[in-house]
Amino acid sequence: MRIIGKIFPKFAVIGAGNGGLAFAGYLASQGYVVNLYNRTVENIKAIIETREIVLRGAINATGALHVVTNDIKEAIENVDVIMIVVPASAHRIIAKKMAPYLRDGQIIVLNPGRTGGALEFRNTIREMGINTRVTVAEAQTLLYACRKIDERTINIFSVKNEVSLAALPATRTRKVINILAHAFKQFVPAKNVLETSFNNIGAIFHPAPTLLNSGRIEMNENFQYYIEGISPSIARILEEMDRERIEVGRRLGIDVITTLKWLEQSYGTKANNLYEAIQETRAYRGIMAPSRIDNRYIFEDVPASLVPISSIGKMLGVPTPTIDAIINLACAAQDINYWEIGRTVKSLGIEGKTPKDIRRMVMEEEMSVLEYVEGEVV
Amino acid sequence: MRIIGKIFPKFAVIGAGNGGLAFAGYLASQGYVVNLYNRTVENIKAIIETREIVLRGAINATGALHVVTNDIKEAIENVDVIMIVVPASAHRIIAKKMAPYLRDGQIIVLNPGRTGGALEFRNTIREMGINTRVTVAEAQTLLYACRKIDERTINIFSVKNEVSLAALPATRTRKVINILAHAFKQFVPAKNVLETSFNNIGAIFHPAPTLLNSGRIEMNENFQYYIEGISPSIARILEEMDRERIEVGRRLGIDVITTLKWLEQSYGTKANNLYEAIQETRAYRGIMAPSRIDNRYIFEDVPASLVPISSIGKMLGVPTPTIDAIINLACAAQDINYWEIGRTVKSLGIEGKTPKDIRRMVMEEEMSVLEYVEGEVV
Repeated sequence: MRIIGKIFPKFAVIGAGNGGLAFAGYLASQGYVVNLYNRTVENIKAIIETREIVLRGAINATGALHVVTNDIKEAIENVDVIMIVVPASAHRIIAKKMAPYLRDGQIIVLNPGRTGGALEFRNTIREMGINTRVTVAEAQTLLYACRKIDERTINIFSVKNEVSLAALPATRTRKVINILAHAFKQFVPAKNVLETSFNNIGAIFHPAPTLLNSGRIEMNENFQYYIEGISPSIARILEEMDRERIEVGRRLGIDVITTLKWLEQSYGTKANNLYEAIQETRAYRGIMAPSRIDNRYIFEDVPASLVPISSIGKMLGVPTPTIDAIINLACAAQDINYWEIGRTVKSLGIEGKTPKDIRRMVMEEEMSVLEYVEGEVV
Repeated sequence: MRIIGKIFPKFAVIGAGNGGLAFAGYLASQGYVVNLYNRTVENIKAIIETREIVLRGAINATGALHVVTNDIKEAIENVDVIMIVVPASAHRIIAKKMAPYLRDGQIIVLNPGRTGGALEFRNTIREMGINTRVTVAEAQTLLYACRKIDERTINIFSVKNEVSLAALPATRTRKVINILAHAFKQFVPAKNVLETSFNNIGAIFHPAPTLLNSGRIEMNENFQYYIEGISPSIARILEEMDRERIEVGRRLGIDVITTLKWLEQSYGTKANNLYEAIQETRAYRGIMAPSRIDNRYIFEDVPASLVPISSIGKMLGVPTPTIDAIINLACAAQDINYWEIGRTVKSLGIEGKTPKDIRRMVMEEEMSVLEYVEGEVV
């Protein structure tokens, strides 16, 4: 790609929440040109004034931003990499907003994509009739564990050692990782976006334990989300959702690990069942429950994690009754039709496709693009 | 009926739990012949010794039983009225056990029937090829609020002023109420068993708030079930379940009142929504949550309240996604297939019938029975 020749790729960071400020602050502190975008200008007023972000905790640094704006055009023009750091439920609207101003060769990274993020993002752009040659990639999780201290100061609790990432199609994953590697050594290649999408453990750990603790959350009880929130019955419900997630993935022809196995790989936890595993995972001690039901665990993970798994399951004939139960409870609790606003096979652009078609779609360049890839991008 | 001529009908009480002991103790204290049956002999050992039940609280009396047994034949032979006071999930097995020993003219009263109790009980007997002429009736709720103090002493917190009851078919309701009126003035006629079955508020108040408070219940937290357990989100989920219940009833052609309206009728509560109504219902103050998930609110009300509503809904084309969500969560939490063990249109004996057929079935004598009714029973 043309930008490989440059020492310093230019970045846009979309979203000035915890994760967005962490990315923007770190990149700026390392000398990269960084534009920061946020939809609501009130939330970036303090940063607009000073253009500075201060990082504390695991990273101690200050970064000076190039542009701070609520104008998406201004944010993304002339950048090489666009880091999207907003709730996945907002990916579609961001894609629509951004699409007219994208330029050939730009890389878009969803941090993270949840389930079907890259597919939905690319399909949204295409459905608008825009044929700009961009590469959409999705990270499996957010690189940082972090929280704002004030409007321009962010506390970095930890930086993950490794975050898997896949581009769409997978033929471009290595190139995206190489460009990101200028600034981040942590991104490692996943096989394809189905792998990053289906190993989305948030689908299991976020909506169900929140809803199944509705009473105490809404009565303002303070409790440890994992350790005290995932009781034996709730753990069994999560195991059943997990089984459904893995079965949909299996039908797509991809390897998905169980949440139990994921806990072992991520935290070294060994246990016979999910309840015991969570009790024995030290990293979960002290993580408190959200203070309300209407939080990202529901409004992000229901439409952008559970609905796409269910929708793909339905298309492929894999029943997902427990996942559907949690979606329906969220719909009823909030009077929001998550089936309608969530990611479906239609919005992902895979409606009516066979598992083989879908695997080819995420693995290989389309013929119409190949020419471009060989002639101009590669 | 022959037994109308007697001053004192003879009773069998099936089930020596809280409600069963209350019925048996009260009837015996009033001088009726009462046989008490319990499946597990260990639980009635103390009563077998003395044959006495002591009532305390709202009723202060002692009753001497005629027979105390775990032999169903011995319990029901020579009685006129069989009061069934076991979890509704056990009605089918009790019907099977009892069927070979039933005699023409006996009256069976389910206390309460939950949803579809009388239909299921009658259908179970018939499916066994047994044509004994009995009348099955269902009460809408349990007459007593009570709890055992020890193995033969029962504390009666309160006795309801009115409990609606319907026989199957409804042409016999008045006669059943007249016979029960020897001992109980509280039973009043419902239109038919669909009315008692669909005004089963336990379907709304029992399984969902239990499951949606799984975390705190299994962490042994002590909290008020209604006042602290039914938070705003949970109340919205209950309202959605309620809407589905009422719609299935409406499609059957019966009037079902909302839970909000029921709270107004039962407790004089006036409020705009279920959350506020429960907060304002004094009777719910101090009622504590169950100490475990595996209790009657789940193992009785899921198969005997929610599954039949859902099954009838499916047959009539009424979607019940929120009710289904709660059923599926109970299945996953307990690894029990409630869809299979629960009451369905098949086990109720109404599979393939139209609403009109079903209404006729619950309202009118069948032709083959009419002759008998006119000749012998009436």
